Amino acid sequence: MSAVKPGEDAASVDGFHRGRFVLVQPRKGHRAGLDAMLLAAAAPKGFTGRLADLGAGAGAAGLAVASRCLQASIVLVERDAEMLHHASLTLAHSANAFLRSRVETLSADVTLTGAARRAAGLDDAAFDFALMNPPFNAPADRASPDELRRAAHVMEDGLLERWLRTAAAVVKPRGGVALIARPQSLSEILFALEGRFGGAHILPVNARAGDTAIRVIVRAIRGSRAPLSLFPPLTLHDGADHGFSPRAEAAINGCTTLFDD
Amino acid sequence: MSAVKPGEDAASVDGFHRGRFVLVQPRKGHRAGLDAMLLAAAAPKGFTGRLADLGAGAGAAGLAVASRCLQASIVLVERDAEMLHHASLTLAHSANAFLRSRVETLSADVTLTGAARRAAGLDDAAFDFALMNPPFNAPADRASPDELRRAAHVMEDGLLERWLRTAAAVVKPRGGVALIARPQSLSEILFALEGRFGGAHILPVNARAGDTAIRVIVRAIRGSRAPLSLFPPLTLHDGADHGFSPRAEAAINGCTTLFDD
Repeated sequence: MSAVKPGEDAASVDGFHRGRFVLVQPRKGHRAGLDAMLLAAAAPKGFTGRLADLGAGAGAAGLAVASRCLQASIVLVERDAEMLHHASLTLAHSANAFLRSRVETLSADVTLTGAARRAAGLDDAAFDFALMNPPFNAPADRASPDELRRAAHVMEDGLLERWLRTAAAVVKPRGGVALIARPQSLSEILFALEGRFGGAHILPVNARAGDTAIRVIVRAIRGSRAPLSLFPPLTLHDGADHGFSPRAEAAINGCTTLFDD
Repeated sequence: MSAVKPGEDAASVDGFHRGRFVLVQPRKGHRAGLDAMLLAAAAPKGFTGRLADLGAGAGAAGLAVASRCLQASIVLVERDAEMLHHASLTLAHSANAFLRSRVETLSADVTLTGAARRAAGLDDAAFDFALMNPPFNAPADRASPDELRRAAHVMEDGLLERWLRTAAAVVKPRGGVALIARPQSLSEILFALEGRFGGAHILPVNARAGDTAIRVIVRAIRGSRAPLSLFPPLTLHDGADHGFSPRAEAAINGCTTLFDD
């Protein structure tokens, strides 16, 4: 994730997977990093199918899967024109030649439904897997501060509900979804999975052993009736310095997966 | 949890908290043990209020709180006449003289609602804390095997929904609830907490470090808007033998709490 070479004034070129691929992304606003790399490590080991990166930004998570899984095909789905432009710059970069032919971009809003979603290019059952790193602070992600409301009201309008509804529509039966979110979103995530995805694997991520989680990574299977599994945490840092633990280092750099290794 | 002395033919007398109190329970059917002791360790450190043990059986979890917290008052709520009889035998046992005056039994079905619940002795806002170790295999705990259904349908009929609805009714504002369940019940638990209890603490329990969880212990606060916290697991066994880890051993024996120490 260090700078490889300067890009345009307003963009940076950052190396991931120990420099195996780069991301061209705006210097301002949300910048991809650790969360996207961890999310990509939740995609299956040796994945060979078609994967949608929903809300891809400049393409960090999707490209990390393309970098690790050399037979995977990726569609970067993003509604923001500036981010899509940077995704195109990213794919055009010479360092990404090895994955370029397997990655395409799609301008579409993840929250579209039905015919409008299909018309935007997000067909029913068109993917084997979907990744998502939904924004944390969208208005729909917050419950009303004025009242406590029952789950059906809070959750059916939520951002995660809408994103996972789309994931369920575009993923084939027995296909999968993975997302990374804050632990406080766990209720909304599980509610949105119910009746759509089963066999959920929940991986807490903590900064240090013994800490409460700062992230949860959730993977689930379309139409599965398997019970939920709660995994021991991935601890990012060990030892006295700020370096990553060996497992986190391997996952971030595409050398291991979170659920299949 | 070893046998202290023989009871009636159909009952055993088992010591808990290193023999500090005993439980008289039927030899057949569900027998209290590890789950009840862990659940009791989720009640607050130094608890001094009134606590309802919902579905108390012979009283294991409630008595474990009475044993650890010497100013706590406990109501053992149980609908089954045979279990209530054993709860009475338990309280009458000489080993339990030190807690007997602080514990009472109440014959009531936890799933009662409204006026019927109040008439059974479960008044609104009558408790500072509620514990529950709901049965795992009740019919209402299973979703239909024939179809995938949306959460609102599956969950609003569920056993955990009904038990947590009662907990929300009988606990005062800012009072608490704690329960122990299987990880596969996590969706239903979080759904039932929504709009009633907040600030959920989720503690996974695994048999050995690195394993997926075999239980979750959840504690939450009535009316709180604090976010959910996902704790690192309590690991029951360490080392090469079948002995408990130091933390599990301390929690099981009333020497520490799970969330406050």
